[in-house]
Amino acid sequence: MAKEKIVLAYSGGLDTSVILKWLKETYDAEIIAFTADIGQKDELDGLEEKALATGASKVYIDDLRAEFAQDFIFPMFQSGALYEGQYLLGTSIARPLIAKRMVEIARAEGATAIAHGATGKGNDQVRFELAAAALAPEIKVIAPWRIEEFRNQFPGRAEMIAYAEEHGIPVKASAAKPYSTDRNLLHISYESGVLEDPWFDPSAPENKDMYLLSVSPEDAPDQAEYIELEFEQGNCIALNGERLSPLQVMEKLNELGGKHGIGRVDMVENRFVGMKSRGVYETPGGTILFTAHRKMESLTMDREVMNLRDSLIARYSTLVYNGFWFAPERLALQALVTESQKNVTGTVRLKLYKGNIIGAGVKSPVSLYNPNIATMEADPTQAYDQGDATGFIHLNALRLKVSSGVEQSHK
Amino acid sequence: MAKEKIVLAYSGGLDTSVILKWLKETYDAEIIAFTADIGQKDELDGLEEKALATGASKVYIDDLRAEFAQDFIFPMFQSGALYEGQYLLGTSIARPLIAKRMVEIARAEGATAIAHGATGKGNDQVRFELAAAALAPEIKVIAPWRIEEFRNQFPGRAEMIAYAEEHGIPVKASAAKPYSTDRNLLHISYESGVLEDPWFDPSAPENKDMYLLSVSPEDAPDQAEYIELEFEQGNCIALNGERLSPLQVMEKLNELGGKHGIGRVDMVENRFVGMKSRGVYETPGGTILFTAHRKMESLTMDREVMNLRDSLIARYSTLVYNGFWFAPERLALQALVTESQKNVTGTVRLKLYKGNIIGAGVKSPVSLYNPNIATMEADPTQAYDQGDATGFIHLNALRLKVSSGVEQSHK
Amino acid sequence: MAKEKIVLAYSGGLDTSVILKWLKETYDAEIIAFTADIGQKDELDGLEEKALATGASKVYIDDLRAEFAQDFIFPMFQSGALYEGQYLLGTSIARPLIAKRMVEIARAEGATAIAHGATGKGNDQVRFELAAAALAPEIKVIAPWRIEEFRNQFPGRAEMIAYAEEHGIPVKASAAKPYSTDRNLLHISYESGVLEDPWFDPSAPENKDMYLLSVSPEDAPDQAEYIELEFEQGNCIALNGERLSPLQVMEKLNELGGKHGIGRVDMVENRFVGMKSRGVYETPGGTILFTAHRKMESLTMDREVMNLRDSLIARYSTLVYNGFWFAPERLALQALVTESQKNVTGTVRLKLYKGNIIGAGVKSPVSLYNPNIATMEADPTQAYDQGDATGFIHLNALRLKVSSGVEQSHK
Amino acid sequence: MAKEKIVLAYSGGLDTSVILKWLKETYDAEIIAFTADIGQKDELDGLEEKALATGASKVYIDDLRAEFAQDFIFPMFQSGALYEGQYLLGTSIARPLIAKRMVEIARAEGATAIAHGATGKGNDQVRFELAAAALAPEIKVIAPWRIEEFRNQFPGRAEMIAYAEEHGIPVKASAAKPYSTDRNLLHISYESGVLEDPWFDPSAPENKDMYLLSVSPEDAPDQAEYIELEFEQGNCIALNGERLSPLQVMEKLNELGGKHGIGRVDMVENRFVGMKSRGVYETPGGTILFTAHRKMESLTMDREVMNLRDSLIARYSTLVYNGFWFAPERLALQALVTESQKNVTGTVRLKLYKGNIIGAGVKSPVSLYNPNIATMEADPTQAYDQGDATGFIHLNALRLKVSSGVEQSHK
Repeated sequence: MAKEKIVLAYSGGLDTSVILKWLKETYDAEIIAFTADIGQKDELDGLEEKALATGASKVYIDDLRAEFAQDFIFPMFQSGALYEGQYLLGTSIARPLIAKRMVEIARAEGATAIAHGATGKGNDQVRFELAAAALAPEIKVIAPWRIEEFRNQFPGRAEMIAYAEEHGIPVKASAAKPYSTDRNLLHISYESGVLEDPWFDPSAPENKDMYLLSVSPEDAPDQAEYIELEFEQGNCIALNGERLSPLQVMEKLNELGGKHGIGRVDMVENRFVGMKSRGVYETPGGTILFTAHRKMESLTMDREVMNLRDSLIARYSTLVYNGFWFAPERLALQALVTESQKNVTGTVRLKLYKGNIIGAGVKSPVSLYNPNIATMEADPTQAYDQGDATGFIHLNALRLKVSSGVEQSHK
Repeated sequence: MAKEKIVLAYSGGLDTSVILKWLKETYDAEIIAFTADIGQKDELDGLEEKALATGASKVYIDDLRAEFAQDFIFPMFQSGALYEGQYLLGTSIARPLIAKRMVEIARAEGATAIAHGATGKGNDQVRFELAAAALAPEIKVIAPWRIEEFRNQFPGRAEMIAYAEEHGIPVKASAAKPYSTDRNLLHISYESGVLEDPWFDPSAPENKDMYLLSVSPEDAPDQAEYIELEFEQGNCIALNGERLSPLQVMEKLNELGGKHGIGRVDMVENRFVGMKSRGVYETPGGTILFTAHRKMESLTMDREVMNLRDSLIARYSTLVYNGFWFAPERLALQALVTESQKNVTGTVRLKLYKGNIIGAGVKSPVSLYNPNIATMEADPTQAYDQGDATGFIHLNALRLKVSSGVEQSHK
Repeated sequence: MAKEKIVLAYSGGLDTSVILKWLKETYDAEIIAFTADIGQKDELDGLEEKALATGASKVYIDDLRAEFAQDFIFPMFQSGALYEGQYLLGTSIARPLIAKRMVEIARAEGATAIAHGATGKGNDQVRFELAAAALAPEIKVIAPWRIEEFRNQFPGRAEMIAYAEEHGIPVKASAAKPYSTDRNLLHISYESGVLEDPWFDPSAPENKDMYLLSVSPEDAPDQAEYIELEFEQGNCIALNGERLSPLQVMEKLNELGGKHGIGRVDMVENRFVGMKSRGVYETPGGTILFTAHRKMESLTMDREVMNLRDSLIARYSTLVYNGFWFAPERLALQALVTESQKNVTGTVRLKLYKGNIIGAGVKSPVSLYNPNIATMEADPTQAYDQGDATGFIHLNALRLKVSSGVEQSHK
Repeated sequence: MAKEKIVLAYSGGLDTSVILKWLKETYDAEIIAFTADIGQKDELDGLEEKALATGASKVYIDDLRAEFAQDFIFPMFQSGALYEGQYLLGTSIARPLIAKRMVEIARAEGATAIAHGATGKGNDQVRFELAAAALAPEIKVIAPWRIEEFRNQFPGRAEMIAYAEEHGIPVKASAAKPYSTDRNLLHISYESGVLEDPWFDPSAPENKDMYLLSVSPEDAPDQAEYIELEFEQGNCIALNGERLSPLQVMEKLNELGGKHGIGRVDMVENRFVGMKSRGVYETPGGTILFTAHRKMESLTMDREVMNLRDSLIARYSTLVYNGFWFAPERLALQALVTESQKNVTGTVRLKLYKGNIIGAGVKSPVSLYNPNIATMEADPTQAYDQGDATGFIHLNALRLKVSSGVEQSHK
């Protein structure tokens, strides 16, 4: 009888290597190793060999970067999502895509389960599993770090290394960094370790080596750089006159943002699983895109549409953060967001300088800004009659006057 | 029989000087000139003499700065207000205070009307008049710029100057700036004139003279400066260890922000009266306060309280922008905001550098961040059982699985 | 030279008859009379002759009932709209349709203006004119009741009758009712006159003659009647097994609701123009549809989608009430609503009895209710593990415990 | 050494009787039985003796009805809470009060844990435990139905009866009803058993015996009854001219509602633990109070306050439903709600008739309805100038015209 198959989200690091082997033994199953290339760069070399050497029966290494940019990052940026006023959701938005591909592979391979190496304290486990639940409710999820036997077997790093050696698992002898990181096309996150103390200052010069995507503002060029982003219906489609795919947009903006010390965030955030944690993020390209998008909207988006959409940002962001990307409520919100972006078309000019993104002009063929109306000079088109403001104010004041009158006569 | 009295919001500039005289003649009334000191600095010298010389029967010049900081700026910053994702509402929040004092004076003096020099195209007329309506519905408002006769009599600046000369109104022969400004303790705004073109770049070096409160990031010191803000229940009460009043907080932060090139915003915004307009703002201290406040909240505010409050920022901001400060719905929102700030107490450390406000640590005696819970290391307190996440995820996934199952069986 | 053309929303009553003539004389224009049949029943007979006799150059009487039901009533009911918790928006939702047809006629006829007989105190003027502004900003709107000359010429009904007689306008000598009404496919409204006193009780037996669409609950049959409504994606598509168009659904439900004393509402409401007013409504079919739709949703709509949609009902309803049907923010909300209805399919059984609409069963091929999961009996499918609730509760409680602990240690 | 103490929420029924004994044996602990009188009526007689006979070391039977009405029901009704558009939260609102008293007793008695008999599938376990977590994070919660050993020991009712007999636990030999119920001052709920089929019709005549608090509309008196409720700041303080406490209000309204067939709801609802379930409710008094409160608000509440509050009803209701009564976000919302009720004072007249609650007049000393403004007759006070509507409409239309113009020129 054929063995059960399990698709494992595999990174090649110590944890998922040990998990690969452990799953294989514990479940007497075939393990299909899967690694998504979502822009984490150099970590993919030699992965296939390593996975096979560790015991995988098959290996998938799929380049999902274009899909990530187009179907995940871009729609999210249309919404103006910003978790708790600070976080651009770089890790959160990647998890559903990985889960989506995992269940696709599981179905193609006839696997009955997927597995991941996320811990029981974090958000990622939730994101993976909610995405899987929404896409493939019939597929089981195995999360070894939430299995007591696994945790007992591996109380610390030492036991994992010993296990790896014992089972001939190739492990790179890397010095453990005093924090953990997650990297993709949108950002790098840093957390835990020394960062667990919220009074610790990662921006201090002595800690500058932590950052991988950007220089610090202090180390950025003394010369500002101007760039132009072109938008169509809320999506950036060109940079400095060159038409680009979403993936190319992200790559170029990351380069630009990194060079100019843009996009670092250091925050305490609220996890879905109930605790606060401290995270440090570099989102160089995303931060530029976020700023440019808002500026594009300011010229082309209707006032009430913006107000409505803005009032839903907290909700949208929380959905993404919590892992509900494929949930029906996110789809409903996205329908609203998509509709809101219909007129968000034009060009934004920005000046990048030592951590700053400075607006330097905005224009649009479908601008809703009419200088003839706004001007303090004489308006030849007579589009606005100042006398109209009297009635406008009177009727807006009416309920206030009635309330106030009632209140005064009952003091 | 005693003449009718009108209280005029008087700045000493050409417009309100002409209006003072015009009102006096047109209504055959006593004009009480009122100027609020809300931090506009040097513009107050010689005002009393000038108003009397122009025909005022009485002059009030009231220092409202402390009240402005404590009862207007601080409660608003507790809410996290940011209009259309960009504007810190520096002008908007000052208008209700001015109107409040005007109706106080009107009542004390037995005046039947108040008057202002705001144009019929802007937001300020609305803010003044809605505040007055809410506080003193029995008092009339006169807005000469919305009176056709007045507009006909003064189609341009030339006619106003001629009128001033003719009536012996002292007018400073100042070169007209190619934009208009409004300054107070919280900010300076710049709009109209050359700024009406949204592609015009006020951040370009050749335009640097426009800015009065801050240097440009380029001209800011090469040396970063660290500061510590202490908060109590959402209000900043001390800076670098020195206990300060709200007014002192604003003054010190303005100085610091201005020195480090912080707080410039250039945006297109939506006015309540229906059009988009372009505004440029300097809010050096407010920008620091805004950032520090969010960071303080991140450590001390409950997740769901923050989500709830954040979902209301668009509404709160719009209320303030539109002039509904004294409206019952703002009071209802403020009650929620006040409650939300009960635990927002602690210390934020910031690094100011060339336009950047960089978080450099946060701590609190009532921190809701528990490193024992969040840590990836072994937690001696066992406050968090990783196994709990399984049930948490399963129940959160339940509705997604049911939906997905139904959908798949009906494809 | 050809005369200017004006399209007038014409009802054949005294007001719009006088206005027709007055417009023709005052503007020296051709008047095109337009009457929309939106279900107001018997009032349309002889209208064309009357309009021509009064001076119209052309007459449009268009049956818009099917469009009204399908493109206006049904999408609105998908949203669960209920203004201020009570009003089903019967008048509000009709106005944009009328305006839409008016500007279509204006464009087809080359007219430069449209005119209506709504007063300056009500909501309808706003609804007509905002719809026209959104659809045809180039077309002027003439609202005689807001023109001082017109109001001066016609201070009361007597002057209008005299004018009509003088100009040979045929006027039916109807006894003026002590209230005014507006009727269409969705409802009849009653307001003003004796109803202006909110302590006046229109439900008292002596006032029963006012109501036209329904009997009172007291006069309804003693025998309950069961009906079944079938929904597809949030729209009612069949009644008691018979497939019906939206128009037919409304007609049948009106009959049923009217027969059983269903759908009367008596309320004080807040007008967009700033005052409270008292309105009494009969919405027999709409009330059944509203109730049935919610019950259908309860079985088939995801929990979070419902929560999201419900949180937007106040906003959606206000948009419709205020006349922003064609505004971009309503379209954005509608996109969300449409998405939310994708699974709202199935059958609702209701019992109609003397004013009551009593749920008597609901079923669906895409039901999200799974009795195996919900049952208190043993669940053979094991879809729910009670132990999961422990982790779920623990993690939901975590932030509460942390907060509470901090609070207790700082009392 | 003293034994550990556990406070058990004890009803005297089979489940909690078995649990009492089981806890005592399993934990070798003293069991303090606690029963809250929250209006469940006759079920309290003989409870103390029974608990002691079953093994309790001490018994608390506390009358919490006044506190329930005043501090829980009334503040909730001020908010207009209605879960998923249908459910008045009768069970949800009682749980936090019971938990509050349990932890008070636990602290007074030095108990280390509280225990309850709620199942692992329902909302009540969550409500008890979240309330306890928020009030007393140091106290443990024991939920036997979520303990596998307990479930294994008691797979069905038979095993519980056997255990009871074996341990001399007095059990009333009641015929099991084909559904389960929960009763308190606000409502009775019915669920599970025959009700699990959502097509089952509990309103059918053959099922009428299920209902305990109300007659069916069919069986209600043929004669309508008029009542007057007086409100002060959003709370009902008198009925038909007689000043009443909140508890008395609820008792009287229950009697009235029950008599007239008012307040039955049959719905499918979404539980916090992730599944849909079917619930049938009788809330006779609450339904009257809910309706009267809205009508009182309609006359006395500012339009924008109502809109703001209404937009938060879904959130508030969900918080209560999910058990977050003592969570900081509920307190923040309540602060808003309390502020919103300041002017909700006056008298509502209702007509009760066979399931209908018909508005029959509303009045208030602080009414915001001004007939002089609203009237279609001549207004002697000139409080409203119809001409003002022109400017009001023009400025509201401005952004629509600009949008529309842009759209048309880019088709």
